[in-house]
Amino acid sequence: MTTYIAPLRDMHFVMNELAGLDALSSLPALEDATPELAGAVLEEAAKFATEVLAPLNKTGDEQGARLTRDGVVAADGFGAAYQQFVEGGWNGLSGDPDYGGQGLPELLHAATVEMWNSANMSFALCPLLTAGATEALRLHGSQELKDRYLPNLIGGEWTGTMNLTESQAGSDLAAVRTKAVPEGDHYRLYGQKIFITWGDHDMTGNVIHLVLARTPDAPEGVRGISLFLVPKFLVNADGSLGQRNDVHCVSLEHKLGIHASPTCVMSFGDQNGAIGYLVGQENKGLAHMFTMMNEARQKVGIQGLAMAERAYQQAREYAKERIQGKPAASKSSTAVAIIQHPDVRRMLLTMKAQVEAMRGFAYVMAANADYAHRHPDAGERNRYQTRVDLLIPVLKGWCTELGQEIASLGVQVHGGMGYIEETGACQYLRDARISTIYEGTTGIQAADLAGRKLAADQGAAMAELIAEMRELALELERSTDTRLFPVGAAVATGMQALEDATGWMLRALAKAVDEALASSFDYLMLTGYVCGGWQMARAALAASRKCAAGEDPAFHEAKIATVRFYADKILPKANSHLEMLRSGASSASDIAIEQF
Amino acid sequence: MTTYIAPLRDMHFVMNELAGLDALSSLPALEDATPELAGAVLEEAAKFATEVLAPLNKTGDEQGARLTRDGVVAADGFGAAYQQFVEGGWNGLSGDPDYGGQGLPELLHAATVEMWNSANMSFALCPLLTAGATEALRLHGSQELKDRYLPNLIGGEWTGTMNLTESQAGSDLAAVRTKAVPEGDHYRLYGQKIFITWGDHDMTGNVIHLVLARTPDAPEGVRGISLFLVPKFLVNADGSLGQRNDVHCVSLEHKLGIHASPTCVMSFGDQNGAIGYLVGQENKGLAHMFTMMNEARQKVGIQGLAMAERAYQQAREYAKERIQGKPAASKSSTAVAIIQHPDVRRMLLTMKAQVEAMRGFAYVMAANADYAHRHPDAGERNRYQTRVDLLIPVLKGWCTELGQEIASLGVQVHGGMGYIEETGACQYLRDARISTIYEGTTGIQAADLAGRKLAADQGAAMAELIAEMRELALELERSTDTRLFPVGAAVATGMQALEDATGWMLRALAKAVDEALASSFDYLMLTGYVCGGWQMARAALAASRKCAAGEDPAFHEAKIATVRFYADKILPKANSHLEMLRSGASSASDIAIEQF
Repeated sequence: MTTYIAPLRDMHFVMNELAGLDALSSLPALEDATPELAGAVLEEAAKFATEVLAPLNKTGDEQGARLTRDGVVAADGFGAAYQQFVEGGWNGLSGDPDYGGQGLPELLHAATVEMWNSANMSFALCPLLTAGATEALRLHGSQELKDRYLPNLIGGEWTGTMNLTESQAGSDLAAVRTKAVPEGDHYRLYGQKIFITWGDHDMTGNVIHLVLARTPDAPEGVRGISLFLVPKFLVNADGSLGQRNDVHCVSLEHKLGIHASPTCVMSFGDQNGAIGYLVGQENKGLAHMFTMMNEARQKVGIQGLAMAERAYQQAREYAKERIQGKPAASKSSTAVAIIQHPDVRRMLLTMKAQVEAMRGFAYVMAANADYAHRHPDAGERNRYQTRVDLLIPVLKGWCTELGQEIASLGVQVHGGMGYIEETGACQYLRDARISTIYEGTTGIQAADLAGRKLAADQGAAMAELIAEMRELALELERSTDTRLFPVGAAVATGMQALEDATGWMLRALAKAVDEALASSFDYLMLTGYVCGGWQMARAALAASRKCAAGEDPAFHEAKIATVRFYADKILPKANSHLEMLRSGASSASDIAIEQF
Repeated sequence: MTTYIAPLRDMHFVMNELAGLDALSSLPALEDATPELAGAVLEEAAKFATEVLAPLNKTGDEQGARLTRDGVVAADGFGAAYQQFVEGGWNGLSGDPDYGGQGLPELLHAATVEMWNSANMSFALCPLLTAGATEALRLHGSQELKDRYLPNLIGGEWTGTMNLTESQAGSDLAAVRTKAVPEGDHYRLYGQKIFITWGDHDMTGNVIHLVLARTPDAPEGVRGISLFLVPKFLVNADGSLGQRNDVHCVSLEHKLGIHASPTCVMSFGDQNGAIGYLVGQENKGLAHMFTMMNEARQKVGIQGLAMAERAYQQAREYAKERIQGKPAASKSSTAVAIIQHPDVRRMLLTMKAQVEAMRGFAYVMAANADYAHRHPDAGERNRYQTRVDLLIPVLKGWCTELGQEIASLGVQVHGGMGYIEETGACQYLRDARISTIYEGTTGIQAADLAGRKLAADQGAAMAELIAEMRELALELERSTDTRLFPVGAAVATGMQALEDATGWMLRALAKAVDEALASSFDYLMLTGYVCGGWQMARAALAASRKCAAGEDPAFHEAKIATVRFYADKILPKANSHLEMLRSGASSASDIAIEQF
């Protein structure tokens, strides 16, 4: 197993040239977030990821989290690493300064999230969930709740969870049955939640659960769900910890991967009811929860990128070291490193090109989130938020689908060694496999993109994105760098596919929603490949300018070559998704269930 | 976890309507292989797979094979199941009757191999390897060796292995270092082999290793490799077992999947040299070994199909039972089984359509092998063998790549439950993951297809295949069943893509072999999708005739709908592979190794 080294060179390129880090520091309260500060922060983060988190990845996989009579015990070393994480201020990097956060841009946060997940996805899930819970509380909690819970959540002294799923309520949260019975200024909760990531552990003094439940007179379905804060230990007015609350992990799942991340069955109210506090308005819980879902979906999209990067690094190092076979094109009888063989190089570049495309897309989305939060002009804030809302399901769905494909390619590059657990390559595949499922499956993301985001404005936000891509294709055509012409042509083709697909989807939505939903996965993947191409093409333009200026030509030439590979070998998938999409449900509805 | 039920209805359809089981029984020595006999055999096989093999699949995964001081001990129940397997005559189904085999067609054998692998891939690997060793011995061994070893290998009383890989010799067998020193009528072998499937176990009294090694004066490289038979226990002239030979399993690999299939490090000659017997001619070992590789590659292709079928069955049953969410297209507020949701149906049909395409392709190839072995006319034998040789790498590469994708989709259909080991869906993904690696990676298959098979006759065999497809497309166009028109159009498009790709590959091979090899994976996948379409289109024609005759309309209507789905949603991938292929190495060779 190789160690993880943060890809700082490409991260800087993407942050500066694609996501506009420099411009971000002109936003209110981001004045300190200069590229210099960002550079220093990322260097420290890279060190932490390599030195502290990465060494625990394999041992955590082998040992896993354990359920004891005193609750869940994290894998060896995780508690100490988490303390260092908190002490380093990493948990509150982009958190609200009013509650002790550092208020740095989401863009910078995104890069650190990539590092934590590449180094140790099981570990990284803990702050990922905390961030979601924090966001829901920050936006919807009462001042009293915020004052009592936010500082320790933002600092990371306590961790947060999202308690949504019940055995009968997975993708369909309308079916939630957990009860919340009012009692004075609080409620008592009764019910069982499953698949609760880091639902319990011994790394911090408290765990703050955000829980969906129904009050006694709540209406049926989604309109009767409320959001509650349920701490593991009650918190006194002075901030000290009070009595143990009636919420317990009653079992841990035995999973394919992320063994060190405890996936808990949480039981509320086995004795006298778990004390909880209403967050936001009664019966508006699902809407409030979506705040943290969006936050979490963005981060899970970055997980897809992160696992792909980690798998790529491991495969690349193996391919450089493993000597096997003679080159077909030469008469030499000397065996070479397998990176010299054309098909191995194809696999590595398939990994590299898509990793860089995902990074461009994910970081630009993070910068858009910063503008959506902080731009002084309300219209601009709204415009950026609309873009983020439109593309979050794509970021989540496409990056996690690719993350798995790339982790699997990583195994393949190793040949037989890839299948041996000691090599490490298959852990990334096992870990990454959850990412297309949790926080909404790819199918749910696709339905969100097509059925909700596209339908909400009849494709207006998508049309704006397509117009931007058209501009870009023209800019590439006008470039004096001839290497960019085929990239421009590929972007134009992709843009056209996206436009055609969007038109088809809008017509299908108006006519036969099942046709649209049957093609929604293809629409999501098509949008993802084209968005990746959009950012890769911008990268090629920037790299071409840098080459012309003589700056770091080795890196920038390689970037252009990587973009060309993406245009040649990855973007054609967009057209095949367009073709599949156009057949709608095809013959799927003609087949009786008993003929499956 | 659901149990495995052999898909007998579709197996019969494919054997009878696509692979021509009836016509096969007109071949010499296959007179008894009537459809009636085949039906009876398959029914018994299905029972054995469901009742004996399938129940051991999960327990075998959990327990795995174990290395003890007395050698490898198979997982609980495997030994008894293997005895039943042998007693039932399953091992020798298609084996040479002169040595106790039943001499039934490869086609029938292929269907049973699918069942064994669907039910329990770890178990199925043991007879799969035996069959390879048997074939090498049958074709290249001396009469004495055959008389002494073949009956027990064909009966299955002993099992066989393929000892190729060494740590420095994986895909490149030229690097083999194991030594074979002559001594009287035998040799003594010294060396270490890795990744030896079922290299040792306690299920049978003997294990017969086929081993690649070098004699002392052998030339360097591939021309100095010989093939040896090395039994675990020496065999006396009267057939009784003699002394323990100096070959031992010294460790077992800890793998992602197929835990119950021991993957051994085998050490030859730690004490006084392992006694071995030359098989075939000295220094011709690699060519002899390829005989068993071809046999094994065909079977591993069927493994891809088998794992896909198993994953499909499990996902299908879950999708029929799991109630979640309301249908988007109706105003009903009642939750439905998830098979009703369009995106779940898309996933299930993506599995079903590709499973049926693979089955058509694999069984037709098996029937072609029967013709290649048994046709009375030498020219016809040769014609069929050429077809088989051309397409074996496609069968192996394409079916195993799809097997993995489909096993992963199977996890996805389950949502969160899919990620839990108890559900069983992820075992299929873990098990299937090896199939694109062993017996030659997909990259090796692709290089074999393009660099060897295509180059050998300058595309003549492929041109003949394309001509057949063209005929088929015309037949579909002329059909009176209008449902077949779009299928005909899709086949015509696919056929054209294959023709264009073949032309491109031949030109690239002549000009720049690295360009060809960089596109060889795309060429293999394109060929696979088009071959799947070819057989699916034949299936649609046959089903249409059956519908017109009023035979089992429910099944045959569903078959036509499944073919239409394949044409609409799967075949478009052929065109995207064509587009990727045409860019050759793209910019891959422009990137310096240190820029990866």
